[in-house]
Amino acid sequence: MAQPQAAAHPPRRLLFGPGPTQVEPSVYQAMTQTLVGYLDPYFFEVAGEIREALRQVFGAPSAYTLAISGTGSSGMETAVTNFVKPGSKLAVFAAGFFADRLSEMGRRHGATVVRAEKPWGTTFSDDEAREFIRRERPAVVAFIHAETSTGALQRPHAICEAAHEVGALVIADTVTSLGGVPIGMENAGIDIAYSCTQKGLSCPPGLSPFAMSGRAIERLNARATPNPVWYLDLKLLRDYYDNRKYHHTAPISTFYALRQGLRLILEEGVENRWRRHLDAHLEFVRGIEALGLKMLVPQGERIPSLNTVAVPEGVDDARVRARLINDYGIEIAGGFGPLAGKIFRVGVMGPLATSENVRLFLEAFGKCLKEQS
Amino acid sequence: MAQPQAAAHPPRRLLFGPGPTQVEPSVYQAMTQTLVGYLDPYFFEVAGEIREALRQVFGAPSAYTLAISGTGSSGMETAVTNFVKPGSKLAVFAAGFFADRLSEMGRRHGATVVRAEKPWGTTFSDDEAREFIRRERPAVVAFIHAETSTGALQRPHAICEAAHEVGALVIADTVTSLGGVPIGMENAGIDIAYSCTQKGLSCPPGLSPFAMSGRAIERLNARATPNPVWYLDLKLLRDYYDNRKYHHTAPISTFYALRQGLRLILEEGVENRWRRHLDAHLEFVRGIEALGLKMLVPQGERIPSLNTVAVPEGVDDARVRARLINDYGIEIAGGFGPLAGKIFRVGVMGPLATSENVRLFLEAFGKCLKEQS
Repeated sequence: MAQPQAAAHPPRRLLFGPGPTQVEPSVYQAMTQTLVGYLDPYFFEVAGEIREALRQVFGAPSAYTLAISGTGSSGMETAVTNFVKPGSKLAVFAAGFFADRLSEMGRRHGATVVRAEKPWGTTFSDDEAREFIRRERPAVVAFIHAETSTGALQRPHAICEAAHEVGALVIADTVTSLGGVPIGMENAGIDIAYSCTQKGLSCPPGLSPFAMSGRAIERLNARATPNPVWYLDLKLLRDYYDNRKYHHTAPISTFYALRQGLRLILEEGVENRWRRHLDAHLEFVRGIEALGLKMLVPQGERIPSLNTVAVPEGVDDARVRARLINDYGIEIAGGFGPLAGKIFRVGVMGPLATSENVRLFLEAFGKCLKEQS
Repeated sequence: MAQPQAAAHPPRRLLFGPGPTQVEPSVYQAMTQTLVGYLDPYFFEVAGEIREALRQVFGAPSAYTLAISGTGSSGMETAVTNFVKPGSKLAVFAAGFFADRLSEMGRRHGATVVRAEKPWGTTFSDDEAREFIRRERPAVVAFIHAETSTGALQRPHAICEAAHEVGALVIADTVTSLGGVPIGMENAGIDIAYSCTQKGLSCPPGLSPFAMSGRAIERLNARATPNPVWYLDLKLLRDYYDNRKYHHTAPISTFYALRQGLRLILEEGVENRWRRHLDAHLEFVRGIEALGLKMLVPQGERIPSLNTVAVPEGVDDARVRARLINDYGIEIAGGFGPLAGKIFRVGVMGPLATSENVRLFLEAFGKCLKEQS
């Protein structure tokens, strides 16, 4: 056989990057359950359990939830293509890579994109948020709740309040926050939120959890022109989930994985899980500071599950990362864009968000750093 | 816990429907392999093995292949959104549901869609194909190689020849044919083909195998306006696979499954596999005729891996299907649109395409039919 064959088994990795992150064995095992058809009542039972659990994890008891059959970026595209009409104004709070991606999607879909811009790694104050929205009066406001490229967590409340004052819908990117950080979607007033499965939910990638408020659904129903993207058309997807009208064949094995991942989260209790992530984060920060290093993002604006550590003067971050993966099988990520070479991005999520694992990481990280300096 | 829980294990099913179809245990097991990052060299090894195997299964040794991170319908959308520009003319050969879906996507993307229409269950003759294309002179021609809604297999050669005469690209929907039926993409002259994983490749759903000719890539590179759909932008996806430039987090577990599924296919040998499917089909047809039933599609135009059987006078097809699933755990599908209530759709694919399984099916089917008549 001339066919090039990759090794049968993946290398051993501890996934301390921003995602994909470590997955529990029972979640992997869930994918070995046999397939059923996309109209099988069992599939809708599984999907129903997922949709209810998502309401709890998003903090949105009355939201309409579903899982889009693509990765987190397909959720971003779903939010944009369904709610941002060509010619309408989209206001984006931009202080990182994923805000840029969302802006790009908005432009491609024909929106007029206006941006409030700040340096990567910062967040917007309540006053900045209100001032921008009241001045621009957009149809849709978008912000990145947890900016994966910088480690900064954006407060949602003032954004949502000001957006609703001017009649705008609010899209929140919760790709890195869902499962590891409270979102409080309903309390904050977020209308549309999307996420992924391979970060805070500790599942394999392949689905995008999605949630919509009643206001979002009203806007969706009122839309007269069809969504240009058939595959991500929420009207058709709702018809599938609500009325079992065939749309596409859902990735059923990934649904099994997500169902099991969410069961583990609800068994632990969402509040307990968030608290565990926060504790691990605080221990991580103490350890980093004990190593004489600094966090990029100021206290109070950090994503608890994704830490960004400033690369010390004179250290080559790529060599540290190579050393970590080669000697310890530990994957972390570097920065990119304006933060290239300037930060380490370390996810402490899911099964890794424990005291033992934080200490294991810090010990290896400390050794690799020392060898480089 | 107020959470509604679905049963932990799916019901036992023999998937004789049009898809998802039966999956080998080793393919399920492949998904229990631990995740690696989306830039891990191991991921690109796995993806490289998949891409080479796809060239063999598509019959396109020099095509550019990849797997889109969505289901088969996302492959259709990828083909349309990358190659059918707003305002351009798309010619569709329409004799079934999936041709209608493709037409709808073309319209949503702003194309002028012209259609050659024939009754569901028929195919287009070489003369009909040539006449339509020469008259319309479209920028892109699309046809459904294996129409899942009817069981009809369209000959590609005259379509591709005439399309190239007028300078058009050819899109072929091979969702139901890939893996179970020879496509001969390069020999036929198909420029763009997409498929799914859960039919002829006997894997779980979640990826769309995709192949492009050199002509398609030239057209892609020459496109000046950006693709409106960022998630399915083939220029960005090529940059990820060729230059490892981050685009999105691929559904890695589903890649593991697809890699294993393709290994099983190459171990058997693609020609042997196609022959096995053809043999099972011929045995199926003999058995159906022995039961006094008729196939919908004339001999010579049938998809070997997806059989459509006419529902006999006086038989309620839904009751037969319910009986099959309740008493035997056998899933098949009915018809829809103009064929609702008129056909049974029976997939004989992958592990089920054997003499034993065909006989097992026919015995159960015969009993359920008799009880209904």
